[in-house]
Amino acid sequence: MDETVIQYVLRRLREIGCSDVFGVPGDFAFPVNDAICADPQLRWIGCCNELNAAYAAEGYARIRGVGAVCTTYGVGELAALAGIAGAYAERLPVFHLVGMPRMAVQRARAIVHHTLGDGEYSLFHRMSEPVVCAHAMLTPQNAVYETERLIAEALYHRRPVYMSFPADLARQQVVGQGAPLLRPRSDATALAEATQAIVEALAAAETACLLPGLLVARAGLSGRLQALVDASGLPFATMFHDKTVLDEQQPAYAGMYDGALMNDDVRELVEGSDRLLTVGTLMTDFNTGAFTARLDPARTIAIDQHNVSLDGHVFSSVEMGDLLAALAVALPHRGWSRLNVRSLGPVTGTGDDPITAEALYPRWAQFLRPQDMLVAETGTASMGLAFAHMPAGANFYNQALWGAIGWATPAAFGTAVAAPDRRVILITGDGSHQCTVQELGQFARLGLKPVVFVLNNDGYLIERLLCKDPAAAYNDIARWRYAELPHTFGCDDWVARRVTTCGELDAALDAAGNGGTGAYIEVVTDAYAASPLSLQLSAKLKNAAA
Amino acid sequence: MDETVIQYVLRRLREIGCSDVFGVPGDFAFPVNDAICADPQLRWIGCCNELNAAYAAEGYARIRGVGAVCTTYGVGELAALAGIAGAYAERLPVFHLVGMPRMAVQRARAIVHHTLGDGEYSLFHRMSEPVVCAHAMLTPQNAVYETERLIAEALYHRRPVYMSFPADLARQQVVGQGAPLLRPRSDATALAEATQAIVEALAAAETACLLPGLLVARAGLSGRLQALVDASGLPFATMFHDKTVLDEQQPAYAGMYDGALMNDDVRELVEGSDRLLTVGTLMTDFNTGAFTARLDPARTIAIDQHNVSLDGHVFSSVEMGDLLAALAVALPHRGWSRLNVRSLGPVTGTGDDPITAEALYPRWAQFLRPQDMLVAETGTASMGLAFAHMPAGANFYNQALWGAIGWATPAAFGTAVAAPDRRVILITGDGSHQCTVQELGQFARLGLKPVVFVLNNDGYLIERLLCKDPAAAYNDIARWRYAELPHTFGCDDWVARRVTTCGELDAALDAAGNGGTGAYIEVVTDAYAASPLSLQLSAKLKNAAA
Repeated sequence: MDETVIQYVLRRLREIGCSDVFGVPGDFAFPVNDAICADPQLRWIGCCNELNAAYAAEGYARIRGVGAVCTTYGVGELAALAGIAGAYAERLPVFHLVGMPRMAVQRARAIVHHTLGDGEYSLFHRMSEPVVCAHAMLTPQNAVYETERLIAEALYHRRPVYMSFPADLARQQVVGQGAPLLRPRSDATALAEATQAIVEALAAAETACLLPGLLVARAGLSGRLQALVDASGLPFATMFHDKTVLDEQQPAYAGMYDGALMNDDVRELVEGSDRLLTVGTLMTDFNTGAFTARLDPARTIAIDQHNVSLDGHVFSSVEMGDLLAALAVALPHRGWSRLNVRSLGPVTGTGDDPITAEALYPRWAQFLRPQDMLVAETGTASMGLAFAHMPAGANFYNQALWGAIGWATPAAFGTAVAAPDRRVILITGDGSHQCTVQELGQFARLGLKPVVFVLNNDGYLIERLLCKDPAAAYNDIARWRYAELPHTFGCDDWVARRVTTCGELDAALDAAGNGGTGAYIEVVTDAYAASPLSLQLSAKLKNAAA
Repeated sequence: MDETVIQYVLRRLREIGCSDVFGVPGDFAFPVNDAICADPQLRWIGCCNELNAAYAAEGYARIRGVGAVCTTYGVGELAALAGIAGAYAERLPVFHLVGMPRMAVQRARAIVHHTLGDGEYSLFHRMSEPVVCAHAMLTPQNAVYETERLIAEALYHRRPVYMSFPADLARQQVVGQGAPLLRPRSDATALAEATQAIVEALAAAETACLLPGLLVARAGLSGRLQALVDASGLPFATMFHDKTVLDEQQPAYAGMYDGALMNDDVRELVEGSDRLLTVGTLMTDFNTGAFTARLDPARTIAIDQHNVSLDGHVFSSVEMGDLLAALAVALPHRGWSRLNVRSLGPVTGTGDDPITAEALYPRWAQFLRPQDMLVAETGTASMGLAFAHMPAGANFYNQALWGAIGWATPAAFGTAVAAPDRRVILITGDGSHQCTVQELGQFARLGLKPVVFVLNNDGYLIERLLCKDPAAAYNDIARWRYAELPHTFGCDDWVARRVTTCGELDAALDAAGNGGTGAYIEVVTDAYAASPLSLQLSAKLKNAAA
């Protein structure tokens, strides 16, 4: 099969699950842009700007396991960089395809547009290096092995990679052939020893609890972990970043664990267990209740992607998937102590009542349906929604480590492209929404029908809660007519409402839930109507400063 | 005077002309955000996102000579990076102030939000290094000398610098005192020799022409160069990137020089001159008519910022300002051959006639007034406007080297903040406008009244002209109702029009020109209504490919 460099790369991306490429075109990237459009099995998904395209690809990768974003040299790739860094932090293999000037221009050190004007052509990929796990400039000679290497690295580390394409080389024929690299395999002895050690450790325990982590979902191993839970009867609690790695509608689910900040009963279960199995968790500030979690390393069995550790011993070359499968067979079923999950509480407020936090979050929780994809922006809204008890098969997506405001709007677009048959619910704050709002128009362009809630509390509420002076000018934002945005951006038949009372909110939720169209609800609250976790964080910081 | 680290830096920025800081707040940047708001002589200018803030600071620096943008760690600073790179390419000293986690968090390698989750705190400033001329992490010990060093570097190179502020250290008292570093000074002998050499070279020439360059304006030396023109009588032509470095309403102005692509009479004057004085020019693709300029190095006298070369000899340590002043005294006035400047031609089309390129660009040219600041986005619109004969004191701003689409909308905001008493005219394409559209709301928030023209030609026209298949899907964009944007974004009393005919355009121009409010005109043209230069470029590339 005769293929050009770019054709080879695109075919391989398709084969690993990426059938859409987000991006912004540009002259140096024309060969890449052209090849995407010429491939009948690929879709070019044009975005308004490169950062939004990167976030969309990141959201897409949460569903598909991989994503791709295409930008042009310099101006384009650097504008996407913060989104690529987010994919790195959030462990999502996003392929960043960058079109470069042709080799003759590079060799001549010509001073062309989209450069710094110094004739240097090796600066920008170096700027990407810290936020990708591998990178290469693709040539006819290296395209086969570099593509396979980069795919292997991206999937092994679950991190983004960077691939640049000089315009002339991208259109040349690939030299040679190759085969996909083999996926990592466990060392049989280490796997058997680790399995046995965990079985024995749990056998000696009276109480135990699982903490399923983000990396389980990233590696596509939620099914295997569920089989382990089913076979063993182990209860599990979930940390902020890891929400819905396992389905929340099952008796084994104990609720959200957030250190000492929230849910004392869950904290007692987790911290009081004789043994704690963490599986692919990250011990970040947001996952540990601002470092108030007290997880005893001596009692923790830590299963990571490629190794496992317990009782001071590390078993290397033990793949998470292999170990989960082995444990599902080896662990006996026991009547482990479990916990009933609490909900966000009853819906309160009616008619002309203002929309308080107590009125709002239970309503949002009730609005959710099985299989929903809830994309929750960083800030007080996601801090409230994380404690909603999610319906069966529903997912909660958040960027809890990188935490870039603005991520959610284009990321929701990416999830919608990845799974058009599932309902997407975007919940974002006003300040965050302003960052990346233009991507709203893309939903309608592709006939996608999300339900969008914008929490209009007149500024950056989470910052008001955390900074010295809540009324500081930097927490204010421009006052928009949010509910006009869908019409302005061409989302013609959407339900668009601005609601300021519980009654209006209820009516809007009805309209949004029933419609066969997209919906956009601007929810107006008091500037300080904050979710409980955000208030806890605020109190903790103020106490620390006192 | 007792000052904290951040107070010291902010005071020094004020003293060099920067009284506004653009940015997006964030918890790690609170000490910087707080200090800006607490300083009665500084304004915090909140932007919708960091890239827009960087572009706004870049626009501001075009007027004020310096600009500043403040972002938070990781998420914020990387999102601004493409804008900082643009300031580097465009030779604008933008100070990038980045808030970092406090030192205890960094030393503990804590895994906190806005990081990659690896405990590394030295990655992001390294990503900035290639696009700044100097950088430092500010501490109480180094604040004085690092601030002075960075200011000196920024002004010497006319490039951005990067300053990071650990949250705890930013609030501590500065140790020691300092004085501003001295500005560079010419070597007296070299200056005298260079002056004499140029005087002799011109004395021996029959014909000569100046090419005033961007760096003259960046260094604030337009006045000195004008004095030289007045004293010597030399004619000058201008390249794309350098438009309005000198006023275009004077007999010495010969028009736009764009290699072999446009204006044959100007090309003959420039390329046929016995001597050519380039002053701070950059020989980029856009400045040379896509490298069709034929400038004989043997006849060229190249005056750069810190040195000058002619006849194979380089005089180092000759400062541009000193040399221009010396030449204004030393050069005799002569009746050098000049050229009459052509305009864009008469206004054509009336009533229901469609808005062709021939109808549009002369109207825009006529609409301009003395002292206007015209911010023209990269693309076919700026390629048309660059050949307008600008009124007295009017400036043409473009990002002709970096050429990032989306730059113009927030950059226009930055120029309006920098010079609120001058009229700002933003002319942008639809695709570019979509990149950064949200900053529109900031004008109204600050009571600024720009005139905004959005050229709606249903996609990326310049790319349609340059790529293989003009109708390629990647050249299409979402279809917005642009004229609704001002109302949606809170620009309440603006004139907002959508015009599709010459008659409607004329009425809108009248309304926009007369109003005491902001104005927003969506100009709808055929998808292929292109300015002459963009058609020339297209033809040149198609010929090269044939």
